[in-house]
Amino acid sequence: MTTRDDCLGRDAADPLAALRARFALPDGVVYLDGNSLGALPVATVARVRDVVADEWGVGLIGSWNSAGWMDLPRRVGDKIARLVGAGPGELTVADSTSVNLYKVLHAALDLARAGAPQRTAILTERGNFPTDLYIADSVARARGCELRVAGGDRLAAHLDDHVAVQLLTHVDYRTGRVHRMDARNIAAHAAGALAVWDLSHSAGALPVNLAGSGPLVEAADFAVGCGYKYLNGGPGAPAFVWAHPRHVARMDALGVRQPLSGWLSHAAPFAFADDYHPAAGIARFGCGTPPVLSLVALECGVDTVLAAEPLGGIEALRAKSLALTDLLIALVDERCAGHGLVLQTPRDPRRRGSQVSLAHPEGGYAIVQALLARGVVGDFRAPDLVRFGIAPLYVRHVDVWDAVEALRQVLVSGEWRDPRYARRAAVT
Amino acid sequence: MTTRDDCLGRDAADPLAALRARFALPDGVVYLDGNSLGALPVATVARVRDVVADEWGVGLIGSWNSAGWMDLPRRVGDKIARLVGAGPGELTVADSTSVNLYKVLHAALDLARAGAPQRTAILTERGNFPTDLYIADSVARARGCELRVAGGDRLAAHLDDHVAVQLLTHVDYRTGRVHRMDARNIAAHAAGALAVWDLSHSAGALPVNLAGSGPLVEAADFAVGCGYKYLNGGPGAPAFVWAHPRHVARMDALGVRQPLSGWLSHAAPFAFADDYHPAAGIARFGCGTPPVLSLVALECGVDTVLAAEPLGGIEALRAKSLALTDLLIALVDERCAGHGLVLQTPRDPRRRGSQVSLAHPEGGYAIVQALLARGVVGDFRAPDLVRFGIAPLYVRHVDVWDAVEALRQVLVSGEWRDPRYARRAAVT
Repeated sequence: MTTRDDCLGRDAADPLAALRARFALPDGVVYLDGNSLGALPVATVARVRDVVADEWGVGLIGSWNSAGWMDLPRRVGDKIARLVGAGPGELTVADSTSVNLYKVLHAALDLARAGAPQRTAILTERGNFPTDLYIADSVARARGCELRVAGGDRLAAHLDDHVAVQLLTHVDYRTGRVHRMDARNIAAHAAGALAVWDLSHSAGALPVNLAGSGPLVEAADFAVGCGYKYLNGGPGAPAFVWAHPRHVARMDALGVRQPLSGWLSHAAPFAFADDYHPAAGIARFGCGTPPVLSLVALECGVDTVLAAEPLGGIEALRAKSLALTDLLIALVDERCAGHGLVLQTPRDPRRRGSQVSLAHPEGGYAIVQALLARGVVGDFRAPDLVRFGIAPLYVRHVDVWDAVEALRQVLVSGEWRDPRYARRAAVT
Repeated sequence: MTTRDDCLGRDAADPLAALRARFALPDGVVYLDGNSLGALPVATVARVRDVVADEWGVGLIGSWNSAGWMDLPRRVGDKIARLVGAGPGELTVADSTSVNLYKVLHAALDLARAGAPQRTAILTERGNFPTDLYIADSVARARGCELRVAGGDRLAAHLDDHVAVQLLTHVDYRTGRVHRMDARNIAAHAAGALAVWDLSHSAGALPVNLAGSGPLVEAADFAVGCGYKYLNGGPGAPAFVWAHPRHVARMDALGVRQPLSGWLSHAAPFAFADDYHPAAGIARFGCGTPPVLSLVALECGVDTVLAAEPLGGIEALRAKSLALTDLLIALVDERCAGHGLVLQTPRDPRRRGSQVSLAHPEGGYAIVQALLARGVVGDFRAPDLVRFGIAPLYVRHVDVWDAVEALRQVLVSGEWRDPRYARRAAVT
């Protein structure tokens, strides 16, 4: 049996332990919801203050150039690129995940259907994050396409020569199951489709190899992802968008545009020309004026992940994440058996993201509330999931121990049955 | 002749003078670029700090509910609504002006063409702000529509029964000319078209009557606008979107959706349902997760405009704005004659926004740079415009005097011809 002291010992030996000091975590809280909102980096407070008080307050309009505001989408994009296997200049930060997905799906449809007009389907997975399904539905309607929503084990069967685009989320937000990106790319390409990925629950938590570097790895085609989860960019942080350079070149060759052709996606925005000409490279996937305050906060968040680079980088973060989720699963097995919890997250570490989800047939919501009252922050996902996100930058082994102990007490005492924990309103 | 002392006297008598103290303006700078980036409200520094350090840092994920983050788009939207003649619950804050315009144009096309499929044109104005033209072009292409770009004096001639949507910017960003919104709405409706407005250079600077309150005023149909100009929301602040309630009801009746159907535009986002059902009311024009830091800064900015309400509100701000632009025009007439400047802004105050633009056949860019070196911040707009924005919340009569005096010296001395002021790179 693992003890709390064992966990303290593992923390003492953790080569990434010092990274936790980069976060301003409140006392008395075990925060296992970094997959929903990453914790606050200490550096963000001063940096945002400086941008507001000095760059905006004193530099005023001139800061677009003198403080490098215009360059923020590219600069932060290049940093995120290092975390998801993309090259410099290939990824930009703009808008929300939903808006970026809309841009990418339209562009991918145009590219996939050039010379193959019979390809009229977007294939995606049942239970994909709702915004992905809603945006895919909207794009499919607008383009007269079919939206095929298949179970995860039936994707291959639906990947026929009518499919133009395969849209998948790398890590399932409910179960934490990871798609094998390489194999899914190969399957899509073998069927003549393009592979579009949502990396919202991957970026900053596990290695991603979008560009397919290394021998025999199949590159992806497009990707989008979220800035406020494992990238610690703050509530509602801007999102990112990546296109394989070959597709940017094909967009030029075929005259394909992404539809949200706002002025900051123009080749020369400050020429104020009446006619639209897309910017070179990934900048064409921008749209309006960049949200500077949010971008600066996102940069601070991404910097916390990059701070792991001298310590082994995303591979080391992944190793720690798996050690922590292994620990969480083992402790639940050992200490919470017989209380109705059913593990929904794969035990196979190759298929497991950076979270552990447990179903409870009656009390998922109430258990999360009872844990909150004990200072353990997980979250609930309908219909019955208790979800624990493991952000390896700041979650410790002892946090996992304390969380499972609190869970055990909540279950043994039955305190989750208290009416004050019953479901009432919408929760995030 | 007006003297500097006259200007100081007018400032002393200005009932809105105290509002300037709500802004953190640097010493030694005359800031006449609030139409491009509004100045920093003093309150923003502490408010953003609190949201970052306390609401995010301590409250973490719980702040979506406990700190009211979920409600920010509606709350800030209701405040902006008071400035543009809209009712509570009719306006929301989301995304950028460009993205919101994209949503609105698609929805307006669907509504205008329901039962009138021959309406296949979007009518807009030559010289409209580029992002409006680019987005309208994108929507027109996607919908198989014609984008008619007409000169401002030829709009009526192009408003025939093929026009589905008339898209105009209320105040021209180059010249500062104001469209008569009421008359343009009447003309559009008489032709069977819907009237869509971009209020980026209006909101917070002059009265707008979107909903057409009062006798015989014709309501508009849709509007979008910018948060970082006269609303002082900070660089890249989120934008707003308004739809007349009758169109929201028609969207329900006809099953019309805006295309960027992200999860935060869903009726029940936290149900995580696979199927999309739009939220009631204007919330359906949201999309992804709201950018909290930027929204909070925008709220502080909007609050500075609302602080004028006990002092006469937007009507009083408009009166001061006209007094200042009158003064600027008069002083340029008196003191800068013979140097090649040609006023581009209407002398008729009913047709003048909150800016003064002067063309110079050779030196627009260089004059702006030479003024900058003297601490007077205006801006340049291609091909030849020197543009002075007058934010009546914080610009004083003496600022206008000092700016024109600096302009006179720049012109008399010929210092703008110095090679260091020659045009090099892109400017904002």
